[in-house]
Amino acid sequence: MTLPEKTQLLSRTIEHIDITRINVVPLVESMGRMSFSARDLSRAADIYDRMLRDDGCGIILCLAGSLVSAGLKKVFAEMIRCRMVDAIVSNGANIVDQDFFEALGFRHYIAEERLRSGMHDDALRELHIDRIYDTLIDEDDLRVCDETTREIADSLEPRPYSSREFIREMGAYLQEHGCKADESIVHEAFKAEVPIFCPAFSDCSAGFGLVAHQHARGDGPKVSIDSAKDFYELTLLKVKNTTTGLFMVGGGIPKNFAQDIVVAAEVLGFDAPMHKYAIQVTVADVRDGALSGSTLKEASSWGKVDTAFEQMVFSEATLAVPLIVGYAYQKGAWRDRPASRWSTLLESVREVSA
Amino acid sequence: MTLPEKTQLLSRTIEHIDITRINVVPLVESMGRMSFSARDLSRAADIYDRMLRDDGCGIILCLAGSLVSAGLKKVFAEMIRCRMVDAIVSNGANIVDQDFFEALGFRHYIAEERLRSGMHDDALRELHIDRIYDTLIDEDDLRVCDETTREIADSLEPRPYSSREFIREMGAYLQEHGCKADESIVHEAFKAEVPIFCPAFSDCSAGFGLVAHQHARGDGPKVSIDSAKDFYELTLLKVKNTTTGLFMVGGGIPKNFAQDIVVAAEVLGFDAPMHKYAIQVTVADVRDGALSGSTLKEASSWGKVDTAFEQMVFSEATLAVPLIVGYAYQKGAWRDRPASRWSTLLESVREVSA
Amino acid sequence: MTLPEKTQLLSRTIEHIDITRINVVPLVESMGRMSFSARDLSRAADIYDRMLRDDGCGIILCLAGSLVSAGLKKVFAEMIRCRMVDAIVSNGANIVDQDFFEALGFRHYIAEERLRSGMHDDALRELHIDRIYDTLIDEDDLRVCDETTREIADSLEPRPYSSREFIREMGAYLQEHGCKADESIVHEAFKAEVPIFCPAFSDCSAGFGLVAHQHARGDGPKVSIDSAKDFYELTLLKVKNTTTGLFMVGGGIPKNFAQDIVVAAEVLGFDAPMHKYAIQVTVADVRDGALSGSTLKEASSWGKVDTAFEQMVFSEATLAVPLIVGYAYQKGAWRDRPASRWSTLLESVREVSA
Amino acid sequence: MTLPEKTQLLSRTIEHIDITRINVVPLVESMGRMSFSARDLSRAADIYDRMLRDDGCGIILCLAGSLVSAGLKKVFAEMIRCRMVDAIVSNGANIVDQDFFEALGFRHYIAEERLRSGMHDDALRELHIDRIYDTLIDEDDLRVCDETTREIADSLEPRPYSSREFIREMGAYLQEHGCKADESIVHEAFKAEVPIFCPAFSDCSAGFGLVAHQHARGDGPKVSIDSAKDFYELTLLKVKNTTTGLFMVGGGIPKNFAQDIVVAAEVLGFDAPMHKYAIQVTVADVRDGALSGSTLKEASSWGKVDTAFEQMVFSEATLAVPLIVGYAYQKGAWRDRPASRWSTLLESVREVSA
Repeated sequence: MTLPEKTQLLSRTIEHIDITRINVVPLVESMGRMSFSARDLSRAADIYDRMLRDDGCGIILCLAGSLVSAGLKKVFAEMIRCRMVDAIVSNGANIVDQDFFEALGFRHYIAEERLRSGMHDDALRELHIDRIYDTLIDEDDLRVCDETTREIADSLEPRPYSSREFIREMGAYLQEHGCKADESIVHEAFKAEVPIFCPAFSDCSAGFGLVAHQHARGDGPKVSIDSAKDFYELTLLKVKNTTTGLFMVGGGIPKNFAQDIVVAAEVLGFDAPMHKYAIQVTVADVRDGALSGSTLKEASSWGKVDTAFEQMVFSEATLAVPLIVGYAYQKGAWRDRPASRWSTLLESVREVSA
Repeated sequence: MTLPEKTQLLSRTIEHIDITRINVVPLVESMGRMSFSARDLSRAADIYDRMLRDDGCGIILCLAGSLVSAGLKKVFAEMIRCRMVDAIVSNGANIVDQDFFEALGFRHYIAEERLRSGMHDDALRELHIDRIYDTLIDEDDLRVCDETTREIADSLEPRPYSSREFIREMGAYLQEHGCKADESIVHEAFKAEVPIFCPAFSDCSAGFGLVAHQHARGDGPKVSIDSAKDFYELTLLKVKNTTTGLFMVGGGIPKNFAQDIVVAAEVLGFDAPMHKYAIQVTVADVRDGALSGSTLKEASSWGKVDTAFEQMVFSEATLAVPLIVGYAYQKGAWRDRPASRWSTLLESVREVSA
Repeated sequence: MTLPEKTQLLSRTIEHIDITRINVVPLVESMGRMSFSARDLSRAADIYDRMLRDDGCGIILCLAGSLVSAGLKKVFAEMIRCRMVDAIVSNGANIVDQDFFEALGFRHYIAEERLRSGMHDDALRELHIDRIYDTLIDEDDLRVCDETTREIADSLEPRPYSSREFIREMGAYLQEHGCKADESIVHEAFKAEVPIFCPAFSDCSAGFGLVAHQHARGDGPKVSIDSAKDFYELTLLKVKNTTTGLFMVGGGIPKNFAQDIVVAAEVLGFDAPMHKYAIQVTVADVRDGALSGSTLKEASSWGKVDTAFEQMVFSEATLAVPLIVGYAYQKGAWRDRPASRWSTLLESVREVSA
Repeated sequence: MTLPEKTQLLSRTIEHIDITRINVVPLVESMGRMSFSARDLSRAADIYDRMLRDDGCGIILCLAGSLVSAGLKKVFAEMIRCRMVDAIVSNGANIVDQDFFEALGFRHYIAEERLRSGMHDDALRELHIDRIYDTLIDEDDLRVCDETTREIADSLEPRPYSSREFIREMGAYLQEHGCKADESIVHEAFKAEVPIFCPAFSDCSAGFGLVAHQHARGDGPKVSIDSAKDFYELTLLKVKNTTTGLFMVGGGIPKNFAQDIVVAAEVLGFDAPMHKYAIQVTVADVRDGALSGSTLKEASSWGKVDTAFEQMVFSEATLAVPLIVGYAYQKGAWRDRPASRWSTLLESVREVSA
């Protein structure tokens, strides 16, 4: 049961699914007349299509888990390109360790089946290979990604940044140095002026770069990441674009963060309506009371989500997301949808008043 | 099916379990000779006991989900009082919306069984009642909590703060104004100099206060929350106290954040060993590849967690945590364990060098 | 929140998905290069395709849960028609309460979303409406189904029957009286001589009919259902057709029953190899040690399933089954696969010898 | 990573928890004032206590999964001894492969942690060791158990038996040959005249014995297992003892079977009330529409379970069952509860009339 060479372990790359080439509309429509998760998925796809057709509705995509390494990157990049999303709230891993990482020219790899058992993790560590369930990463590549975020931090004027501002700089870096992947969420978002927020931005590869940056700067002026500013900026977007819908993949902090802006707007004295649409794809349990699996009806008691168009889909994301996005893509509502370029809204943050 | 008055809906309070008065040792020991989750739980309790007996081992408690509102507050407060934990990494909800909230004199309430159905959430919203599965909160009380965090922000010198620094100020506020609950994690941690980190600090009641603070300050100097500094500080603790163990309740960002400091220390040029001990209580699935349910063996491939003493317990926290902590409490290793007062280590952050 | 009339509640019928009209091959192939459940599903589809191409491999389909009421009936009926399955082991509900029920002319209905909450179940009972999560049944129709199974029992020669024999009589009943649904598993299996086994046959609508039959017969001669004979018959099929593959939807007794025939053959003195192929679609947990979620590797320790071609897919069946069966259908291996007509093998059961 | 000798692998025995020696009342009472699963568990324990105090209420215990091998045998044996249960409906594994197996003098063993990975299952098969997640069985011992059930079948008058009748003969066998375990569910049930039903009786070790018996008898008279008779007998118990409560551990066929007797009684023309009490401990999902995780409210739409006293507890059984049964045991209601000796009610089955 010894492992092969590192190069052999890292030889089969994860390929990102291309939902523009697969017509899933008949499948998803059929599912709508079935029961259980099939019907829920079909309704979620329909609600997403409604969001896209609702004039002036801003769509916020929330990402948790390891979605990019799992092969969903092209789906999200396509959503940006096709004006199917106006802002993204994500954990750091999807944006930095996985998307920006691939944009630097690195890849994720398919793990041999036996590696899932956990019995070889010590051996993988010796080889500098990191494992995400059935997926492998070259840790040496990841160190380059950490280092690149440090370079970016080092190059910036020392002051507090929202994660959104920092990620925009990462997009500018790709624009300047070239994006070495076929597509990139960070790069597409930069070009389309779609803001990306990571409410726990130090909890990823960028965190390593920022810690190195701050450590080197010592007592001197340095870049800091102001998570309150993130929340403020996303709230302002809600204030300026009151009709909103949430498309949540996984739960956790991105879900809570995006839901909370309704209340934050109210705290600032604005009269912002609840999110009009909300769909969530998750495998989380409702029974432990944690937010990741809490129903969208529950969010309604908090005044965050309206109940007319909400749908939970209990499924692992790699199965459900291609069907939901593929359905909405094929239905084509995005063709008539204008680009929102929400990042530009935030350039003039200071002029906002209640 | 109409609802009763608000006062009647909010009449039965959640009471926090007191594990110092219940001897669970025979139960947990018996479980160790059974199968499945019982045996896992028993081993996790034993590993926690080993952490407490390992001279110089620093223990980091990670909290995700709604644990304080669920009645586990006294368990965690007791862990601080009895020197059974040296640092805490948490989502914001447990620390601010739930613990600090109760310390301000507010309570959580038991929801009637039918409210779980979600069929009454619109009615609850009308009454300003927020629901967490089977638990209720008076939203008007929560607004006071938001406002108090704003007051604290307003009172501080404008500069970037780690969440740890800000939460320490919340503890100082309780010390000064009085803690109106029988016990409080924030207050006990303040007194015992146990640092608390919230890597996504704006994602909670404090976020509302901070957004209000920053909005009012406009272009002027203001308090910001530097999540990179959080990561830097926790990494320094690892550097200064190299033997460590993790006690994780739930997964998400607290789990990832605390695991990552091993790698961050290495990035800074320090030779920090993996976490020597790690236990996690969770209901999350391994099968979606997300971190919350990923095995601790997998973390070993990343060089974060050693595999000799690690144990996952697949259980909802309210069932497992009282047994694990109760067992270790009754076994009494804490009696001979010195107070670590890690917060004091961080006062002199700048002198660290590789 | 009062409910509408019964006729209105039972107005939208469940429609069965037709996988012959949807080409899912590009989707399933793309999933094979992703991670997590997508890759697992793709591999399961490939293993099913291999079973179909393996000359002489007998395929046993195991069904647990409420799959027919959920809209998967046409998938399974098509598998029989297209010689993609050689025997079926099922819980009673799918075969009698749901498939035979529809063949008698009755339907399943889509429940309004709020009915899932459970808050209206008392009202449904008053209306003689039974609920399966999001699906409704007219209990008066179900009583007709019970009564029909009693009629069949009354018409038979009194002796012990295997469930396989009794279900064959149900197929003969449909052949004679006409099948009132577009398709029926029981009827297709009758015509194609595909045996169907229900190891807990009294645990369904047929149980009500049989209890009524036995009650009326009192001390006199009566029909009985010999579950040992079921096991004996399925074992004989393994003996006569040694290369086998399992396609399991859900776990429970059908899974265990079909796995066990390898050991039973050995107990009878035959040298039967393990099941060569095995795939399972389930949402069950591995962590409680119960069989439904136990891995197929574990079955290998029992000498039941070979490990070269086995794959678990953690997904709710309505999402995964159309993709797996649709893939194999479109790949077309069934076109060259001969009909096995295994029921005819069992007519001469008594001549078997070791 | 080679495995040690078989004797070493099978050296640490599973020990059954003794809930009579551990006072869990303060723990369970505290849990009732918490949230989530703790509160649910506490309410389930209270409902079980109410069942025991309700004069004339018959209690049916339903068992699915691998509970006896997991160390819960003594809990169930104690329930029989202390008149805390009046009938048992189980899968075959718990009763035959695990309880009767231990009564023959065999044991279950604790598996080394690494064996759970599935990476050693081929090696275990070579050693004739069967694995249930983290538990091991000597397959040679199991073959003796199969053979003993065959001996029992060979010794009986050839006719259809309910599983209840056959299991009673297994109890008589232990009474005659001696029970070689400290306690046995089958043996205690025999002595206390508590009937045990296995609706899928051939799906276990007894199935192997019965197949061998039937194979050897060829066309001659033989023992058969009439599952319809099982259902008829349990229905008669409901008719004769109309107030009933269900204590369900796991779901599956035992749950459905026991719930269905309310409807079966009605089919026979008796006016039987719904089960007055119902509690279920399970890890199953509600979201796949399968019965194992379906709510007890849903069972109410079928007219099977009353909604006033029902409670689901989402927990793995080894954690929750000792607390629920331990609580009720310590509360002591069983002391004043008469023995029901339901098996004796069934001796005169034929005299029943509507």
